[in-house]
Amino acid sequence: MAKDIKRLGLEGKIFGIDANASHLEEALALNIIDVKSSYADLHLADIVVVSTPVDVLVAELSNILDAISDDCVVFDVGSTKAMVCKIVEDHPKRRNFLACHPIAGTEFSGPSAAIDELYVGKTNIICEIEKTAFKLQERALELFQQMGMRIRYMNPEAHDKHIAYVSHLSHISSFMLGKTVIDKEKNERDIFDMAGSGFESTVRLAKSSPAMWTPIFEQNRNNVVKTLNEYIQNLQEFKQLLEDGDYEGIYNEMNDTNKIKEILKGMPQNKKELTG
Amino acid sequence: MAKDIKRLGLEGKIFGIDANASHLEEALALNIIDVKSSYADLHLADIVVVSTPVDVLVAELSNILDAISDDCVVFDVGSTKAMVCKIVEDHPKRRNFLACHPIAGTEFSGPSAAIDELYVGKTNIICEIEKTAFKLQERALELFQQMGMRIRYMNPEAHDKHIAYVSHLSHISSFMLGKTVIDKEKNERDIFDMAGSGFESTVRLAKSSPAMWTPIFEQNRNNVVKTLNEYIQNLQEFKQLLEDGDYEGIYNEMNDTNKIKEILKGMPQNKKELTG
Repeated sequence: MAKDIKRLGLEGKIFGIDANASHLEEALALNIIDVKSSYADLHLADIVVVSTPVDVLVAELSNILDAISDDCVVFDVGSTKAMVCKIVEDHPKRRNFLACHPIAGTEFSGPSAAIDELYVGKTNIICEIEKTAFKLQERALELFQQMGMRIRYMNPEAHDKHIAYVSHLSHISSFMLGKTVIDKEKNERDIFDMAGSGFESTVRLAKSSPAMWTPIFEQNRNNVVKTLNEYIQNLQEFKQLLEDGDYEGIYNEMNDTNKIKEILKGMPQNKKELTG
Repeated sequence: MAKDIKRLGLEGKIFGIDANASHLEEALALNIIDVKSSYADLHLADIVVVSTPVDVLVAELSNILDAISDDCVVFDVGSTKAMVCKIVEDHPKRRNFLACHPIAGTEFSGPSAAIDELYVGKTNIICEIEKTAFKLQERALELFQQMGMRIRYMNPEAHDKHIAYVSHLSHISSFMLGKTVIDKEKNERDIFDMAGSGFESTVRLAKSSPAMWTPIFEQNRNNVVKTLNEYIQNLQEFKQLLEDGDYEGIYNEMNDTNKIKEILKGMPQNKKELTG
């Protein structure tokens, strides 16, 4: 996001705050931030982007709101929304906070993983927009629009329920697929010569950061357990068809699921439409 | 493969045989083949590439071998190897057949899905090389080398066992992930606005052809059921950790699986080494 702000030539300086001193140093060296900073400078900010694992977000958000000026907007970019909205509901500066989830990124972490124009055509889910001060909404939305994001409004509970299906479950399926294959093939590294792009695609998310994903699964536990129950059930049914030799059933399962083609074509990043 | 043969400017004409008349027409229009043909012409061939679903392969291979000349090499490109090797073990022209599995391709099918230089740096598993006549081995290997493939030799049973882990299981995990999300979200198509590149990557293989994959799962049933049992077990253990609130356990599961990064870097298509 800092990269995009620089690319867009927006006015102002980017102050970086990070618990990891070497990440901060790296961000400065990569010219992603202008200044190494701390909470003591937060009162100077017009916009604060909280980009941390979601456990740190819920632990720190109140302290951040305490430290900012009345004219600052703080938004987060976390993958869970119910808990953060709950944590700040009674904060005196609730109107300075905007709960966001820009659906964009890769399996990589740290300053060197930053990508130019990451947000063009990507969806940003905003929750409880009505709880943010009007002129601060406007300031954040103008930034999102300049970055090329599509905005969708949703309540935090609906966000957490649906994101469990279209994001959190994918990560678990990928991690457990990686685990299954590594466990089996640990003594036969040459076997990975047999792995093609299909394997690579399905296990890509298993490279993701455990420090980022553990608190997401913790905060969204009930929804994630539900998606896992349904996924395991579907796998068991598929296995049963195979054990029963019901190949017509297997064909039909796959054929019915082929409609994912049309669904993926309709995804914002795959549409050729103009953004904004 | 026909595209590559043309690109490499190899001598000879490409005869196309297909049960699907419109695919044959399309292949001709795309200049992938030179002539529409039939089994009646098979005696003219120097090389026959059998590229069909594996049920058609085992049904037709004996007929194809019956129809070719003594100086022709026939190879297949199927994702299972034990059954096809078994089917032809006593065929009088066994020495004219080479059992192959080039690990390359996409989730798309038909002539329009053909890709130039698909095989550069990709692994081709060859089974029971010793059962193929020496000069016919040579002819096929020269072609593979010109296409840029890496060759690995393996017995059919080892091939089928390992490919279940690094390919067949990925397809089932992807199909069932697609099914789980489609079932849940069928009345809420807008939800796919929330799906990012992670979801897309993990469900990509769910676009694959059921006609191609059903017979693969059928022929490799025992190995596939075994991988599914292990995968389901790992998912259940992850779910249990989540239900128990054992977030340290969840962190460790993901952290241990992160080593997939190094494994994927070591995959042939991701190495910067020279091929051949």
